[in-house]
Amino acid sequence: MFRTLLAVLAVCVLAGATTQATAQADALPSWNEGPAKARILAFVQAVTEPGGKSHVPPADRIAVFDNDGTLWSEQPAYFQLMFAIDRVKALAPRHPEWKTQQPFKAVLDGDMKALAASGEKGLLQLVMATHAGMTSEEFDATVRQWLATAKHPTLKRPYTELVFQPMLELLAYLRAQGFRTYIVSGGGVEFLRVFAQERYGIPPEQVIGSSIKTKYELRDGKPAIVRLAEIDFIDDKAGKPVGIHKFIGKRPIAAFGNSDGDFQMLEWTTSGPGPSLGVIVRHDDAAREFAYDRNSSIGRLARGLDEAPARGWTVLSVRSDWKQVYPAAAR
Amino acid sequence: MFRTLLAVLAVCVLAGATTQATAQADALPSWNEGPAKARILAFVQAVTEPGGKSHVPPADRIAVFDNDGTLWSEQPAYFQLMFAIDRVKALAPRHPEWKTQQPFKAVLDGDMKALAASGEKGLLQLVMATHAGMTSEEFDATVRQWLATAKHPTLKRPYTELVFQPMLELLAYLRAQGFRTYIVSGGGVEFLRVFAQERYGIPPEQVIGSSIKTKYELRDGKPAIVRLAEIDFIDDKAGKPVGIHKFIGKRPIAAFGNSDGDFQMLEWTTSGPGPSLGVIVRHDDAAREFAYDRNSSIGRLARGLDEAPARGWTVLSVRSDWKQVYPAAAR
Repeated sequence: MFRTLLAVLAVCVLAGATTQATAQADALPSWNEGPAKARILAFVQAVTEPGGKSHVPPADRIAVFDNDGTLWSEQPAYFQLMFAIDRVKALAPRHPEWKTQQPFKAVLDGDMKALAASGEKGLLQLVMATHAGMTSEEFDATVRQWLATAKHPTLKRPYTELVFQPMLELLAYLRAQGFRTYIVSGGGVEFLRVFAQERYGIPPEQVIGSSIKTKYELRDGKPAIVRLAEIDFIDDKAGKPVGIHKFIGKRPIAAFGNSDGDFQMLEWTTSGPGPSLGVIVRHDDAAREFAYDRNSSIGRLARGLDEAPARGWTVLSVRSDWKQVYPAAAR
Repeated sequence: MFRTLLAVLAVCVLAGATTQATAQADALPSWNEGPAKARILAFVQAVTEPGGKSHVPPADRIAVFDNDGTLWSEQPAYFQLMFAIDRVKALAPRHPEWKTQQPFKAVLDGDMKALAASGEKGLLQLVMATHAGMTSEEFDATVRQWLATAKHPTLKRPYTELVFQPMLELLAYLRAQGFRTYIVSGGGVEFLRVFAQERYGIPPEQVIGSSIKTKYELRDGKPAIVRLAEIDFIDDKAGKPVGIHKFIGKRPIAAFGNSDGDFQMLEWTTSGPGPSLGVIVRHDDAAREFAYDRNSSIGRLARGLDEAPARGWTVLSVRSDWKQVYPAAAR
């Protein structure tokens, strides 16, 4: 019986050892060793160390992430715009007037130059025609269906496979360290919520984004949330700290972005009284992903690059900091 | 050694028994035995029973609570209105014009009839004069200071002591059963967030309420969220399901309210495909709290009373369902 007890003890010791080994295993295997990875690990270590002078209680460990260009790719155009374009094509038979009406004509002709020329007003018309007028459940189903079937024009993979593997690891790592991870995106909140849980492990209530107004009404006696063709909130630039304040009511301690649309979010996050972390993803890898910054119409990054050093923000390079960009293809 | 093993086993069995005994202890000691308590316990039991046919996974266990009249009292006027009135008095020296200008004159004269006569427009003016124009941090400090010093006009206790003890127990019980508890209030979200964590155990990101617009700007080079004199969102009546959808993105499974302002929230919650619970607090205890329903200008409850039976909603009586209304006074 003594041996039995010894065996039990041995199992306990081994279990402990295994746990420890797991904890010490590399939580960010797709990140190359370098200043970006080191900075992130050091920050997390500092704020989670019990009794440490930079310790932050779990309730205040809030990390915010831009989505387009930070958690998944955004070239040659925002993926949500690709969705809107596909929806215009699908809905065109019901709208014969679109054949001659901009910006719809441009979409149907595949004329991206004319589409770009329609500007913000054209984009808004496109969004309203494809994102409003249905219930939230109908919209959810449409996005779900599109994500399951659409493919990226050049990379030929489903959009949900074009998320960044190193960022998936980072999200999981932060959550394992007691953080809550939020998306704070210029993209549409209801579009994002369809896949955020499954792809990022981020539940709907932790997704903040741009939104159109909605209305509660009975449709055939059944309660429904109906999407209206009216802007409610633009979660971009100075709108990001506003959205964070509105939805979370607390200042984050870590912010991750990639464009000047994230500047104020990083500024707000890193100007709090305690320890904080600001990270910018720099897209400089034309071979594995895309390369763009100061002169890009999508994801323009100029002020962030200029001011990052003085502000203590980390600029990570896709080319040199990430071993792998996308997850292995689903089989 | 066999005895040692037996002892270990005994300890395990006893530990199990203790856990079970704890689980069976009364989680709602301030509730009288009766149909309301029985209905709540049966619902929670059904949705949490592993493998049960009504089981709901923890991620979907969302319970929403109105605040005024559901979690704390709301007579003789919403407590936030009392705050606005006190603020007008405090700010009056800086606004000599208020002596002759309604609704401010009514407040300064203590003329509640004239104040009521100023209607919704007057109320809005009052809110904007007292809730806008400062940073969110300044507003937070002002509310905190007021809550620490102001007392209810007839009950002579701090407002934060006028929360309902049975509801505090219910909030804690639901959370212990894997629920997330949200406030969904017609009151101001930033006002509520000041005390929701401490009094209700509800963190800022789980408080949904009415809001004014805010703006991100640098004040003396320091980033700040500034409160603007413009309505952003009214979280009342049909606005409550809209607010729930906007902030949570999921339909709750349990809703608690007390007035017709909560009707649509209960309707939305209890028309989902799975199990759900709708509860209305009926204020019928003039001796211990207040008694009002169909004819009250504050917390009017008529349609809810009429339709509750057919909709399967539980109407609880403060007089007969609650052993105790408020927590024992803080010493």
